[in-house]
Amino acid sequence: MITLYYARGTCALASHLALEYAGAAYQTVRVDFAKKEQRSPEYLRLNPKGRVPALLTERGVLTETPALLQFISQSFPQARLAPLDDPFGLARANEFNSYLCSTVHIAHAHRMRGYRWVDENDTQAIQAMQKKVPQSVGECFELIDRELFKGPWVLGEQFSVCDMYLFTLAQWMEGDGLDPSRYPKVADHRRRMMADPVVIKVLAAQAA
Amino acid sequence: MITLYYARGTCALASHLALEYAGAAYQTVRVDFAKKEQRSPEYLRLNPKGRVPALLTERGVLTETPALLQFISQSFPQARLAPLDDPFGLARANEFNSYLCSTVHIAHAHRMRGYRWVDENDTQAIQAMQKKVPQSVGECFELIDRELFKGPWVLGEQFSVCDMYLFTLAQWMEGDGLDPSRYPKVADHRRRMMADPVVIKVLAAQAA
Repeated sequence: MITLYYARGTCALASHLALEYAGAAYQTVRVDFAKKEQRSPEYLRLNPKGRVPALLTERGVLTETPALLQFISQSFPQARLAPLDDPFGLARANEFNSYLCSTVHIAHAHRMRGYRWVDENDTQAIQAMQKKVPQSVGECFELIDRELFKGPWVLGEQFSVCDMYLFTLAQWMEGDGLDPSRYPKVADHRRRMMADPVVIKVLAAQAA
Repeated sequence: MITLYYARGTCALASHLALEYAGAAYQTVRVDFAKKEQRSPEYLRLNPKGRVPALLTERGVLTETPALLQFISQSFPQARLAPLDDPFGLARANEFNSYLCSTVHIAHAHRMRGYRWVDENDTQAIQAMQKKVPQSVGECFELIDRELFKGPWVLGEQFSVCDMYLFTLAQWMEGDGLDPSRYPKVADHRRRMMADPVVIKVLAAQAA
């Protein structure tokens, strides 16, 4: 049995969606960030990074969303969640996921996690970071809308883990001060995802 | 023929090393950051992100180091640069590479690319970011040394693209204000890599 450690409103949603789309037998454990459970000795033994997601498998714990998404895809090949048989296609998927992880998510993180990169008591610098988030995240979604999103899904005809990850980060747009209508392909994609029974089920499970 | 677009002193070194270790037929094109060539219309047509590395293949351009490293590994399987036949092992490799890309490289980038996340004229905020780099990057290398590095190579017995990527980012330690001797496994790994004829060849090619 696979166990996903997640927190509400985080990028762990992408891996949760992937497990559900894969038809995997899995359970979830909620990590309560409000109680700083991600910094508890128990959780740090599981994942020394003190972050989510973490995926407990029979062979050990895995972290980092792009790695989890490919691992879930490869573990449940019949679900066809990534172009596993085509190294170039798989590279396209990983290229997209890596961009979300290392550029889009990072730009977003400067709104609420600025203390990672400046002294936590430097209010001015923290605020300077927050101020730029609408621009820096906005530029990312502009690039996605204009260049990266092939349509009807991220990679083109094949629905994939990239769609789950994009949907996850697009959920943060309003909080980051963006107007979703400026990114029409992403907005339409988000509407279609939101209407999908699998997405509805997973969002309900996380909200419960 | 594969073409790698790189700039000196950047993370593109990891992909350059992978191509060389793979025995690939490839050529390189140097992008001169001092002349802002990465922002030229020609380069932006190739890679709208305006960054390196970019890998021009017969099927199109690929970007993002973790994606390139797996693509090169899969394209030259006989070189055995990643645990391609084991989804869990491959996830371990991608987990490590994703951490380097989205946490270590990002912490480092706050020293010279702070303008990505605050107004470029906000000298105070830029300096506040620079000030934290030794701590934030240091914490990353501590985690690598203590938890992630298996030895003798990153993943254990198998030499892999993870070693090339770790070596690449470890080259920035002194510039980031770190004392390499505080991370003995990483420092020893770096010495062994530096003595490898393939590394010597690639570093010489980039310096020429």
